[in-house]
Amino acid sequence: MPETRLDLARIRAARRVIDPVFLDSPLYRCEPLEGALGCRVSVKLETANPVRSFKGRGTEVVVSGLAGRGERAAVCASAGNLGQALAWSGRRHGLDVTVVSSPSAPAAKLERIRALGARLELVDGDFDLARARARAVADERGVRLVEDSLDVETCEGAATIGLELADAGPFDAVLIALGGGALATGAGHVVKACLPGTEVIAVQPSGAPATTLSWRERRVVTTDSTATIADGVAARRPIPDVLADLLAVADDAVLVREESIIAGMRLFLERAGLVVEPSAALGLAAILEDPARFAGRHVVTIVCGGNVDLPAYRRWLGF
Amino acid sequence: MPETRLDLARIRAARRVIDPVFLDSPLYRCEPLEGALGCRVSVKLETANPVRSFKGRGTEVVVSGLAGRGERAAVCASAGNLGQALAWSGRRHGLDVTVVSSPSAPAAKLERIRALGARLELVDGDFDLARARARAVADERGVRLVEDSLDVETCEGAATIGLELADAGPFDAVLIALGGGALATGAGHVVKACLPGTEVIAVQPSGAPATTLSWRERRVVTTDSTATIADGVAARRPIPDVLADLLAVADDAVLVREESIIAGMRLFLERAGLVVEPSAALGLAAILEDPARFAGRHVVTIVCGGNVDLPAYRRWLGF
Repeated sequence: MPETRLDLARIRAARRVIDPVFLDSPLYRCEPLEGALGCRVSVKLETANPVRSFKGRGTEVVVSGLAGRGERAAVCASAGNLGQALAWSGRRHGLDVTVVSSPSAPAAKLERIRALGARLELVDGDFDLARARARAVADERGVRLVEDSLDVETCEGAATIGLELADAGPFDAVLIALGGGALATGAGHVVKACLPGTEVIAVQPSGAPATTLSWRERRVVTTDSTATIADGVAARRPIPDVLADLLAVADDAVLVREESIIAGMRLFLERAGLVVEPSAALGLAAILEDPARFAGRHVVTIVCGGNVDLPAYRRWLGF
Repeated sequence: MPETRLDLARIRAARRVIDPVFLDSPLYRCEPLEGALGCRVSVKLETANPVRSFKGRGTEVVVSGLAGRGERAAVCASAGNLGQALAWSGRRHGLDVTVVSSPSAPAAKLERIRALGARLELVDGDFDLARARARAVADERGVRLVEDSLDVETCEGAATIGLELADAGPFDAVLIALGGGALATGAGHVVKACLPGTEVIAVQPSGAPATTLSWRERRVVTTDSTATIADGVAARRPIPDVLADLLAVADDAVLVREESIIAGMRLFLERAGLVVEPSAALGLAAILEDPARFAGRHVVTIVCGGNVDLPAYRRWLGF
């Protein structure tokens, strides 16, 4: 059992408070992808739900807890997916939600946050600036700041994906997008606990490598900037507690190039009929960059989100 | 309880022989679609599985029955989705599968049929010619001809979608693509049995109207040709037994224009991030053509398949 802040019993309990619309997402062998990748590939599809990403699992846990304690509001910083999910869960439970984001976040994500009834505050700058502003809002208004990956509920919500993988496994390897770390530590914890022979590989863009560099050096390494189309994973300042968890569950952390991420998105569209956001293609990018490592093995990749601005998507894919 | 060839107990039993990868498909409110449609819209997503359509539910029932009786082969005529699903189920159960199709079927569907190990025979002509050839093959080789919609297992497999809708309902209306009739009679049977207040509306392209015209006239009406991009529902010769079932379960059957189908496909892509084949957009097309009928109601549409040739898809959507 990996030593992390997470707990299997609490993760199983989390399943009971998450709206079933987020649970038991599709998991299937996707053979049309395999010819191009040289290995067996299963996809865990987290895009077919009302917020088109896995984040609803975590916000359901956070918000049901807040609502149960009689709290009426919450605020978060978000590149878009957490904000959308928190807005969705907040609306379900009657909480007033504020999301602090960057105006450079995908327009589709920002539009959905507003449509779900949340207050949206835009801060010109990157995710870490939004995080600082969200903390200030929380202090001013005396409301709960929801911090992705730091708040263990966000990790335990994401960890319910691990339970579903464990029921279907074992696999040879699980490829997990790495940003703040909620998905990698959450799903990773359960996979290591229940399928100890399955390799847990976190994948991050070379243009936003802080968490991976930290994992490799076993200490927090920050970067000055990020440069990646994978907005969902572009963090500069890893959180020490999350890094400690990641060190306990990840067998490896790899970096991939932007062109590999785009090649992965193209494979998903052309061979699997799936529109995915860049973060969701990190797993395929890792296979494309190191096919020998995965040759003939059975790999599962978590397709963590599908919120893209179509004009950008078409530009990346060249049509 | 509607009087059809179908039976609820047998449909529940069908669930137990269908590979779980086809069951419990995503069902969720898709609010980004709603602004354009003026009603509440839930989608039942049948594209997130190994054959990217609902047909696997039916072929699993057919093939497990054949395998249980020691049969070693099966043949079908298919515009692509049934063939792909029969090939998948046949491979799973060790059956030798032959699919007769038209060279004008989407290349992606034909390629997948071959990749799944089935023998593919191409007959220049429409679906009804392929059906005649498949019958001849079955007679020559003494193997089972699987006839979509006529074989009650194909309807009962599709009907398991109805069980999942019934668990989540009621809805005001269910919109179901109509071609041969397996999906409409199958899912329709369970919806009428379990959610009698839910309207069952079958939707067919104006360019392939035979089954709808037959439903309206309460007798088999054939057409000389079909002209629609919705290859999955382009039949000319309704089957009398299937028509009788359809008369018992459908509250209405409507025809929609090609441009509405394309508008529906565009909405799915732009607002829901879903790549769907034309047949799967028939429900949205019906709402777009008669918004007053659906205004303010809660409609569920079955997204029955996602197998498209991308070049054609891009041409239809104009990019």
